Amino acid sequence: MLSLSSAIAFAGTHPAIAQTKQIFDHVCPAFWWTGMKWSRVQILFHAQENLRQANIQTHYPGVKIIQVHHVENPHYVFVDLQIEPTAKPGDIPLQITWDDQRSFVYHYHLYPRNPDDGKSRALGVNAGDFIYLLMPDRFANGDTSNDRIAGMLDQSLQRDSLTARHGGDLQGVINHLDYLKDLGITAIWMTPVLENNEAHASYHGYAFTDHYRVDPRLGDNELYRTLVEKAHQMGLKIIQDIVLNHVGEQHWFVRDMPMKDWLNQWPHYTNTTYRESPLFDPYASKSDQKQMSDGWFTPFMPDLNQRNPYVANYLIQNAIWWVEYAGVDAYRIDTYIYCDLNFMNRFNAALLREFPQLHLFGETWVHGVLPQAYFTRNHLDIPFKSNLPGVCDFQWCFAVQNAFTQKNGWTSGIIEPYLTLAQDFVYQDPMKNVIFLDNHDMSRIYAVVGQDIRKYESAFTLLLTSRGIPQMYYGDEILMKGISAPDGLVRKDFPGGWPNDTVNKFTESGRSDTENMAFHFIQNLAHFRQQSEALRFGKLMQYVPQANVYVYFRYTSHETVMIAINGNDDEVSVSTKRFAERMQGYQHAYDVLNRETIEDISQFHLPPYASLVWQLKP
Amino acid sequence: MLSLSSAIAFAGTHPAIAQTKQIFDHVCPAFWWTGMKWSRVQILFHAQENLRQANIQTHYPGVKIIQVHHVENPHYVFVDLQIEPTAKPGDIPLQITWDDQRSFVYHYHLYPRNPDDGKSRALGVNAGDFIYLLMPDRFANGDTSNDRIAGMLDQSLQRDSLTARHGGDLQGVINHLDYLKDLGITAIWMTPVLENNEAHASYHGYAFTDHYRVDPRLGDNELYRTLVEKAHQMGLKIIQDIVLNHVGEQHWFVRDMPMKDWLNQWPHYTNTTYRESPLFDPYASKSDQKQMSDGWFTPFMPDLNQRNPYVANYLIQNAIWWVEYAGVDAYRIDTYIYCDLNFMNRFNAALLREFPQLHLFGETWVHGVLPQAYFTRNHLDIPFKSNLPGVCDFQWCFAVQNAFTQKNGWTSGIIEPYLTLAQDFVYQDPMKNVIFLDNHDMSRIYAVVGQDIRKYESAFTLLLTSRGIPQMYYGDEILMKGISAPDGLVRKDFPGGWPNDTVNKFTESGRSDTENMAFHFIQNLAHFRQQSEALRFGKLMQYVPQANVYVYFRYTSHETVMIAINGNDDEVSVSTKRFAERMQGYQHAYDVLNRETIEDISQFHLPPYASLVWQLKP
Repeated sequence: MLSLSSAIAFAGTHPAIAQTKQIFDHVCPAFWWTGMKWSRVQILFHAQENLRQANIQTHYPGVKIIQVHHVENPHYVFVDLQIEPTAKPGDIPLQITWDDQRSFVYHYHLYPRNPDDGKSRALGVNAGDFIYLLMPDRFANGDTSNDRIAGMLDQSLQRDSLTARHGGDLQGVINHLDYLKDLGITAIWMTPVLENNEAHASYHGYAFTDHYRVDPRLGDNELYRTLVEKAHQMGLKIIQDIVLNHVGEQHWFVRDMPMKDWLNQWPHYTNTTYRESPLFDPYASKSDQKQMSDGWFTPFMPDLNQRNPYVANYLIQNAIWWVEYAGVDAYRIDTYIYCDLNFMNRFNAALLREFPQLHLFGETWVHGVLPQAYFTRNHLDIPFKSNLPGVCDFQWCFAVQNAFTQKNGWTSGIIEPYLTLAQDFVYQDPMKNVIFLDNHDMSRIYAVVGQDIRKYESAFTLLLTSRGIPQMYYGDEILMKGISAPDGLVRKDFPGGWPNDTVNKFTESGRSDTENMAFHFIQNLAHFRQQSEALRFGKLMQYVPQANVYVYFRYTSHETVMIAINGNDDEVSVSTKRFAERMQGYQHAYDVLNRETIEDISQFHLPPYASLVWQLKP
Repeated sequence: MLSLSSAIAFAGTHPAIAQTKQIFDHVCPAFWWTGMKWSRVQILFHAQENLRQANIQTHYPGVKIIQVHHVENPHYVFVDLQIEPTAKPGDIPLQITWDDQRSFVYHYHLYPRNPDDGKSRALGVNAGDFIYLLMPDRFANGDTSNDRIAGMLDQSLQRDSLTARHGGDLQGVINHLDYLKDLGITAIWMTPVLENNEAHASYHGYAFTDHYRVDPRLGDNELYRTLVEKAHQMGLKIIQDIVLNHVGEQHWFVRDMPMKDWLNQWPHYTNTTYRESPLFDPYASKSDQKQMSDGWFTPFMPDLNQRNPYVANYLIQNAIWWVEYAGVDAYRIDTYIYCDLNFMNRFNAALLREFPQLHLFGETWVHGVLPQAYFTRNHLDIPFKSNLPGVCDFQWCFAVQNAFTQKNGWTSGIIEPYLTLAQDFVYQDPMKNVIFLDNHDMSRIYAVVGQDIRKYESAFTLLLTSRGIPQMYYGDEILMKGISAPDGLVRKDFPGGWPNDTVNKFTESGRSDTENMAFHFIQNLAHFRQQSEALRFGKLMQYVPQANVYVYFRYTSHETVMIAINGNDDEVSVSTKRFAERMQGYQHAYDVLNRETIEDISQFHLPPYASLVWQLKP
């Protein structure tokens, strides 16, 4: 904490902050809590003054200064504060002797930790959830007054430009929580909400310029906290998108770096190779490894040196801070594979120690189950053991996309989801992987399957009945069909999210018949899933696809759901005799997709690429 | 041991055998050795008589009968003999009381175990070797007198038919050991040599009808032993191709089965699915698992029930017998993934306990490094732990074929060998994997690469410089170009292997210029490899391919060899600056492929798809 402007925003609720205006440009974290597991807090003080001589002392019951660190840049001082379990909430008076002439008391505030009732905050997300991924700038504009913020670098506001800001915000999300609830969503993942005071393409949010401040074009910290609260009240969870690998070039601590090795520096600009293989390749060169991890993601995103202990503390504390402050339920960790993996293990451990229910899942845009498993908790007995609980399961996504786009062959086409899941033995808990059909970086599923509504529906059948935590991308429910590179049309606005939009696809009447068909397909299956223990938490049994028909079951001791996908251009009739191991004892079924009873389950018929979801009945 | 005819063949050297003519059709194993780790031998006695009442006793120092097993079929009796370390070579008198009227002494012979000098038998193969795979019926006919054998079912002898016998034999191999030695080969893997008395396509050898007898069309047991001896004298090792999963339908123990569950039986004929995934899939159905393992490989190859302890003992003892009898150096295990994997673990353990240097590698025709690793010693902490030392590395083969046939993309084309090896962290010892460009079931490499001689050479460069045990397929050195399914042309005769062949490509003068170029390319590199510690046993360092050029190094503390493959349609010039980690201290190089000195190693030039092998010099 905090840049000057965010300090002002905070001042109302957090008296400790106002004082920073007087001396410090930034104090991070601006406050902490009693009763935290992370009880040794490293506070960064930043001022446009020479702090080289600053001496800091305190007397506060249960609080000790362990160490004061002066670093290369005299504008910074880092203070390690030990907060014992006995410490009470209040203002810790930090007696700062500035130099020979000046002395000053800085009041560092300790709040009481939020009650850990296990019900209303840091809940985690799990296979029982259904995640909705949205980009706040592109979903709904609930507050036109914050569309442009004076003094910020990006003054664009142009909805027909793919790189400009469009005006969407947190209030827009709040306004549509009902809509999401109605669709059957239980968790919202917004692309990052923290300040991105970059000159260009600031809308995407992945270039933080202040780690402790919600971007004012989206709202403010308090509104974010309100969003989480309102969502929780409605049974909706919030996933925060966190970027640990890099920041924006306009970040204040990049403009005035605490020390040279705050960033991964290169003699000449060096991009990452985007190649993860040297990280696990037993034959990798050090130079390839280094370029992967320490190369920059883009020239505009300085790469944080997470091996620097000050940086590491900064990032871990910041992540703990947002959970405790806002009560979010999970972190989606951006560009996970580019981070220092040993740092990530410490990060994950610290977060889970503080919030045992919190879910952490990383972006692992790699190719192959084995490479992906390297980055999460796995059954590999190798020197580096990742402790990341879950991943964005790109392998599942590729497999399902290929199921509907690749020619069926021995290992291609409809068999791919089957073959991918068959390799789950390498994961410790594949149910913690987030599965998805598309996201903000990929072509939308409806475009991927060539706008074939049956394939689209079957893809969603797979999404909502397979193992793991399903995640959909905003607008897919109304058949938005943007494609990714080169045009980035996957980030278009949700029609109806802006006050003057001529159509409003948030409403039944604003959607076409086909759009309503798609919407209701997802809605129906998502709501069925909410009351189906088998689909959410049940075991999986899958059969080797025969004649390009993929059949699997989700089941508990009380419930069995059968799923079938026809991967053929032709209609098929399939005898169910082969599936006796799971169908024994059942005579009938409830056809979930068609909402009707099936009397005879001895065989099934499926049109080309159609799917079937049967809740079996005795 | 032994069918009647093979017993005759044996009788000269093994007096114990002649007696079987009198009473038993088969006694397996026909003899054993003192001093074996496998000291509890289960002897199968088979007669066309009712052995139900047979009682067996013996008095021989250090030898005890542990148990006599009467089984479903009264034609069989199994006798467990314990041979203590104190037992001396000689004839064990087995007093067999046949029934009330008849009694008989059967002399079971114990030979002294061959001296374990570690130099001349059961040597193993390792990354220092270069394997030549050949089909004995198709390589060279050294003895026309055995082309047809009276009384055997397959009386075909027609060289222009792909399924008929062609007449090649062990003497043909013996006659060309010089040729193979000259080519740079150090180990020979012949497709199976045991009796295949099948009516059709008996030439391929994978349908045993007698486990203890070399097929008389190829030679006899003694000639096989002679082949091994001669090979060893020349520094050539012999790999035996063993089939444990199935036998031929004409196998004597199938025609008169010891018991119903000697085979995996089905109510109706059931083929295997050829799908390995249910074996490791955590979500597999039992029925899919069973069909994979217990389904038959073809309708003509009865599937052995390896969970039957009599079958298990039979197979293990037979494999030990051949090593001790013939002195072979390794087993290539056919259709490994179709076997009962728990049995295979017991099999492997027994063989390695008996012959610690022996190499065992299995045919693992699967897709993906992770699936393949499941079947060998790996770093997976999962319930089933394979103890198989090595595999036929199909993933390496696919990757190299794709390197020269697939369009270069993020994960396709020339990058595939790199990406495949990068996943080696899952193996315990990838140097024990056998790498290959093709085999008797696949299109030949020269055909695969579209008869592009540069791609062909570069494929061989990869084969002879990558990690693992390189294996080539007979005739590739003379640019044979058969393609696999549907025509099976990959098993054509080696021209010159038959007495009346009009051309003889075993000789320089019999080969065309292009064929000699290919031959000498392999020969040169293979011979260089023989004296290059780095290429045989050195560490590997590989770089992420850039601009479709794959560069890697093999190195020891004394020697560094650089390899580069141009995966482009165009000539490339590449600066070697990026490879400083391995090139530091070197100024010059010996260009192995062109046999010339390179003064300036700061960059290299490569024509389209060409390769480079530089032994670096200070």
